[in-house]
Amino acid sequence: MTRSDLFKLIQKKKSFLCVGLDSDLNKIPTHLKQLEDPVFEFNKQIIDATLPYAVAYKPNLAFYESRGIKGMVSLEKTMNYLEQFSNEVLTIADAKRGDIGNTSTQYAISVFDKAASGFSFDAITVAPYMGEDSVKPFLAFPGKWAIVLALTSNKGSDDFQLFSDVNETRLFERVLERTSKWGTPDNLMYVVGATKAEMLEGIRKIVPNHFLLVPGVGAQGGDLKAVAKYGLNDHCGLLVNASRSILFASSGTDFAEKAAMEAQTMQKEMEVILNSNGLLRSNN
Amino acid sequence: MTRSDLFKLIQKKKSFLCVGLDSDLNKIPTHLKQLEDPVFEFNKQIIDATLPYAVAYKPNLAFYESRGIKGMVSLEKTMNYLEQFSNEVLTIADAKRGDIGNTSTQYAISVFDKAASGFSFDAITVAPYMGEDSVKPFLAFPGKWAIVLALTSNKGSDDFQLFSDVNETRLFERVLERTSKWGTPDNLMYVVGATKAEMLEGIRKIVPNHFLLVPGVGAQGGDLKAVAKYGLNDHCGLLVNASRSILFASSGTDFAEKAAMEAQTMQKEMEVILNSNGLLRSNN
Repeated sequence: MTRSDLFKLIQKKKSFLCVGLDSDLNKIPTHLKQLEDPVFEFNKQIIDATLPYAVAYKPNLAFYESRGIKGMVSLEKTMNYLEQFSNEVLTIADAKRGDIGNTSTQYAISVFDKAASGFSFDAITVAPYMGEDSVKPFLAFPGKWAIVLALTSNKGSDDFQLFSDVNETRLFERVLERTSKWGTPDNLMYVVGATKAEMLEGIRKIVPNHFLLVPGVGAQGGDLKAVAKYGLNDHCGLLVNASRSILFASSGTDFAEKAAMEAQTMQKEMEVILNSNGLLRSNN
Repeated sequence: MTRSDLFKLIQKKKSFLCVGLDSDLNKIPTHLKQLEDPVFEFNKQIIDATLPYAVAYKPNLAFYESRGIKGMVSLEKTMNYLEQFSNEVLTIADAKRGDIGNTSTQYAISVFDKAASGFSFDAITVAPYMGEDSVKPFLAFPGKWAIVLALTSNKGSDDFQLFSDVNETRLFERVLERTSKWGTPDNLMYVVGATKAEMLEGIRKIVPNHFLLVPGVGAQGGDLKAVAKYGLNDHCGLLVNASRSILFASSGTDFAEKAAMEAQTMQKEMEVILNSNGLLRSNN
């Protein structure tokens, strides 16, 4: 999916919501647990319920890998199910991968090359610590995206990401400056936590045109309006992720219905934001 | 395996060699490819051949994940095979994981908790970019190890790891300083590339007691003697990894024999180094 396609999708759905599929077997409703593959069934119902309100789905690979091969089967079924909607959602492997060049290529194959691995995500999150040759292999797949960690939503982001050089450039700024030269706004996005919304203003000076994947709204306490105020660009430029607040809105048989309501609430807020910033104009 | 057990093993085998199982299906000998699971058969024969000379095995997860579920089956069989040797080798999941706290816990389960995931590695490599809450979950499993990236062997390591603050502390030094407070030399090791051997002297001032996992000897051009000169401590404190130079020493039917010869050559060099540094004394 191209950047322009993604923007069109955002305009069509009047939403820039990404639903994080952090589908913890221990947290999904009890009535699903007797099924053969409770996690796939949970994901399928969440997807069906939230599809009108979401432009992206982001399975968090840790929650599948923690169940070993069984978990990978649930993930494969989920991705095969999502394939029919490939024109109306972007799929992101939240994996935080990164290693020396030949190894990063293998990680890229593991999420991008269906013939080899069974998986064909549109995008993968990438950890930049190991530098250029660890990031570039993810940018070598036509039509695919690397989403590089810049400033994350968690408390520990202070430990290293705010590390500052003699010119007061912080590590996350150096990551933005350097990595943005390795790709383009058409194959590279960044992770910026919603809990750091006020820092989006400075980030937009370094990467005005890139999409930003913004976790931390919802369970982690980030504020959507602040994110939009500092983060929007002329292609919207934001994918705001919510995981737990949508997935686990109810632990009963109405979980999908409650997830849809939660997703719709966010979509409505996003519609107001998009509209008031003139970003739905071409649809009017 | 405790640090003391690992040192005893090093003394017993007179080796601090780690064999990296970067078992690329495209590079393994042709005659294995007709078998049901060529990668497992390759690993099994490599393990059998190199076991007298190695104290650790390090499957590189990317090379298994790139084959999807089939690859994870090969990895599971490999780890089940290694289980019988659990007293004489340390097993390392080379995975470079790291995410917000609840996600890192899931990644830890995926490699440490056999009941949940089918895998029970002794250790995992961890990327520190996201800070304290991303690293600590890997340190919460008794008897298990986190091996944090400090200064890696690849060219791109310059991009961010050498980023330097106003006091000329570089990022990798800050990583060593901070992370070493989150664990102990008994549950925490560091990745330091052999291609940066001269920098081990400074690193040893920050982490005198920790084990260092050192990739980059062999195919990547690092020098074992230089690594030992600056990196050894009173518990040896080094695990030197070789992958491609051992695995692909021959592409013929003699691949295991040639791998053994390559591993033995390294073990012999290591024996000389251990001996000349008085580290085999308790065995004499």
